[in-house]
Amino acid sequence: MRVVVPFSATEPKTRLAPVLDADERRAFARVMLADVLDALDAVGVDPAVLATEAIDLNRPVTVDDRPLDAAINDLLAASAESVAVVMADLALATPDALDRLFAAEGDVVLAPGRGGGTNAFVARHPDFRVDYHDASIRDHRRIARDAGGTVTEIDSYRLSTDVDEPADLAEVLLHGEGRAADWLRGAGVQLTVADGRTTVERP
Amino acid sequence: MRVVVPFSATEPKTRLAPVLDADERRAFARVMLADVLDALDAVGVDPAVLATEAIDLNRPVTVDDRPLDAAINDLLAASAESVAVVMADLALATPDALDRLFAAEGDVVLAPGRGGGTNAFVARHPDFRVDYHDASIRDHRRIARDAGGTVTEIDSYRLSTDVDEPADLAEVLLHGEGRAADWLRGAGVQLTVADGRTTVERP
Repeated sequence: MRVVVPFSATEPKTRLAPVLDADERRAFARVMLADVLDALDAVGVDPAVLATEAIDLNRPVTVDDRPLDAAINDLLAASAESVAVVMADLALATPDALDRLFAAEGDVVLAPGRGGGTNAFVARHPDFRVDYHDASIRDHRRIARDAGGTVTEIDSYRLSTDVDEPADLAEVLLHGEGRAADWLRGAGVQLTVADGRTTVERP
Repeated sequence: MRVVVPFSATEPKTRLAPVLDADERRAFARVMLADVLDALDAVGVDPAVLATEAIDLNRPVTVDDRPLDAAINDLLAASAESVAVVMADLALATPDALDRLFAAEGDVVLAPGRGGGTNAFVARHPDFRVDYHDASIRDHRRIARDAGGTVTEIDSYRLSTDVDEPADLAEVLLHGEGRAADWLRGAGVQLTVADGRTTVERP
């Protein structure tokens, strides 16, 4: 199985601007990537990074500056083996959660993200393709079924949590087991409760 | 095992006011409760409802109008057997997800909710008590460990999704397998994507 982690190296995580400045967002995105790669290493797969521009990393990095759909779909079309794609901002991903993803049966295994996204998948069907726009989980179910493939969905809070917005940082502080949580604490990001909702602040 | 579903019958789900009026919120809360009870029935447990006021339901309802902590803690203190508490607004709960909750080992098994909540738990330790304020998952970990109990957490997107806000309705429309999703569609609630985030509208 080929395991790919797409990484947006150019101005990552702009929606975290209320909490982190541009340099911090870049640094934090790299820490989350490192956590995801560590968790994949621990599962025993060999992840390759697909980045939008060259980054300094002690493992294979393929640079493809096209939009994500084009880059992933070329890869799916060209690969003779099964392909897994795991997003680089799954700061809560653990080896256990990823193990469930890889161990699940089905031609296409989807890990839904909150808000309709698709945070990770395994494609064992030659005709599966991605369409990450809008509520992609619906499109991915349809694409898999239209191709005649069986679809399995993984019920994982950890894999459903991609980190895009300040409130997502609260999830990292509450449940993170990797360096991303430590990085946030080091940056002075703290949990706070406002109007009954848990989010973060930097006092 | 005693399985309890607390239900707030008085003015439920006020944060859904941007989408549903007061009568609709009451009706929708009842539909979600019915979905949760159905899923629990399918697992083979016998859930009892703990409601803040009398409701018409074809199964046992205990009325306790005190705050949730007091009601649950009395129940925990009085019960000789293990106790599970499952929130009534887990509209995505499936028998599979609940089965993982009940099957997990540990003196206290916690199902975290998004935003630091505790959406369900199983307590097999006589001294476990609840404190649902703010980021309760942290308090529940601490209370369990202070009591000398082992803690297990269930990694379930479905159990992490309690339905409080309009964006949560999008999760129900995208992933619901019960009557709550049908009810929303019948009420004209539809998915929409705004600023890259999936939420709902009622056109």
